[in-house]
Amino acid sequence: MNDHLSGYALALGDDALVAAQRTGEWIASAPQIEEDVALGNIALDLLGQARSLLTYAGSLEAPQRSEDDLAYFRDAAEFRNVLLVERPRGDFGAAMARALVLATYLGELYERLRTSTDEMLAGIAAKAVKEVAYHRDHATMWVLRLGDGTEESHARMQAGLDAEWPYVDELFDSSYVDPRLVDAGVAIDPSGMREPFDARVGDVLAQATLQLPAVRAAEGGGREGRHTEHLRELLADMQGLARAHPGATW
Amino acid sequence: MNDHLSGYALALGDDALVAAQRTGEWIASAPQIEEDVALGNIALDLLGQARSLLTYAGSLEAPQRSEDDLAYFRDAAEFRNVLLVERPRGDFGAAMARALVLATYLGELYERLRTSTDEMLAGIAAKAVKEVAYHRDHATMWVLRLGDGTEESHARMQAGLDAEWPYVDELFDSSYVDPRLVDAGVAIDPSGMREPFDARVGDVLAQATLQLPAVRAAEGGGREGRHTEHLRELLADMQGLARAHPGATW
Repeated sequence: MNDHLSGYALALGDDALVAAQRTGEWIASAPQIEEDVALGNIALDLLGQARSLLTYAGSLEAPQRSEDDLAYFRDAAEFRNVLLVERPRGDFGAAMARALVLATYLGELYERLRTSTDEMLAGIAAKAVKEVAYHRDHATMWVLRLGDGTEESHARMQAGLDAEWPYVDELFDSSYVDPRLVDAGVAIDPSGMREPFDARVGDVLAQATLQLPAVRAAEGGGREGRHTEHLRELLADMQGLARAHPGATW
Repeated sequence: MNDHLSGYALALGDDALVAAQRTGEWIASAPQIEEDVALGNIALDLLGQARSLLTYAGSLEAPQRSEDDLAYFRDAAEFRNVLLVERPRGDFGAAMARALVLATYLGELYERLRTSTDEMLAGIAAKAVKEVAYHRDHATMWVLRLGDGTEESHARMQAGLDAEWPYVDELFDSSYVDPRLVDAGVAIDPSGMREPFDARVGDVLAQATLQLPAVRAAEGGGREGRHTEHLRELLADMQGLARAHPGATW
């Protein structure tokens, strides 16, 4: 069972880690200093979630691996994150579409996971659920402001949403979760979260005068290690220094 | 007097803003996740100091300018930061050399500025002095670890120090501070901070088995708006979105 639990924590940890790196890319180029600060704080929240989840995942392995082993010394094919979080930065509209989707999904996930029978996961989720509620409010504010803004902002927000939407289905694909973990009350079957997710996002889009995209789902595969070149580029940046100087002592 | 006070707050605010952006560049590529988090928090502290100082500077102008006006809608020649903070990212040794110099300088500055007769500056400094004490401890830890580490880490730390040291003198050049502001107890004459700065940094370098660089000072000019191409590149990233979409509403 430890293998499956470790793999589950790893998948959630990789989602948070890759999302943190992408969010961090905005710090130097957000459109307002206040937004720099908000995105910086969101990136740090996600990084904190990643650290907890990866540390836990690595502690269940034999031999054990540290958070740094897992973050810096795995290749793209060993990452288990969904493709949504590795999507290229794109414009601010695409980034806020992605942020709304991710935070809404994570809100549903952590809300359920905080009553996990696994105490570690429950503890991580109890802290994270408050953080992602703020992330969702923040993304909602921007989606409303841009969607219900000028003609140009509306068009760009809709385009961002259309571009990211094909990656929504993968979030709710439960094939990576061992059913025994779900039966034991340890892990969450994400397919059960789709309906409340659609309702929440649908409310925001309606208020923002945006259309729910009618687009075909992308192929997926992130949970099995089939990633896009965007993850390889992100990892090259993230892992370069740690790999050049293992242990960071040169 | 307001002109001079505004210019003084602007110079300090620009130092913090540009340093925040450079520090933020490390978030996605530090050698450890823990370090990602530390640098992320340091960048956010500096961004907070920048916001306070720029907001104050802009409020003293006629017509007034907002922090976003000042951050996003000035060209390089209008920035008043020292050249140290716009230095290119370099390797981690250079970054930690720069961080040690900057935090030691800012520690001396804010320590004095918190008894400024100007209540706004005193308040900003009182908050900032605690933050930069942590930044200095953090940089000191790395300089000791790398300087007194392996042969390679020592060589790279010394090289980083040698590369950044020409930009130290400019920090203590008092020509940008109106002497009347100093006489009125509002502003700090930085030349008086050189001795304690040298003593503090000298202690760290001695413990780290590093040599005080014997290098010629760079030309300076940042306080008068004479900047390097590195600032122009940093501003292109930082200002691009805000300028393309003023008001961030597209």
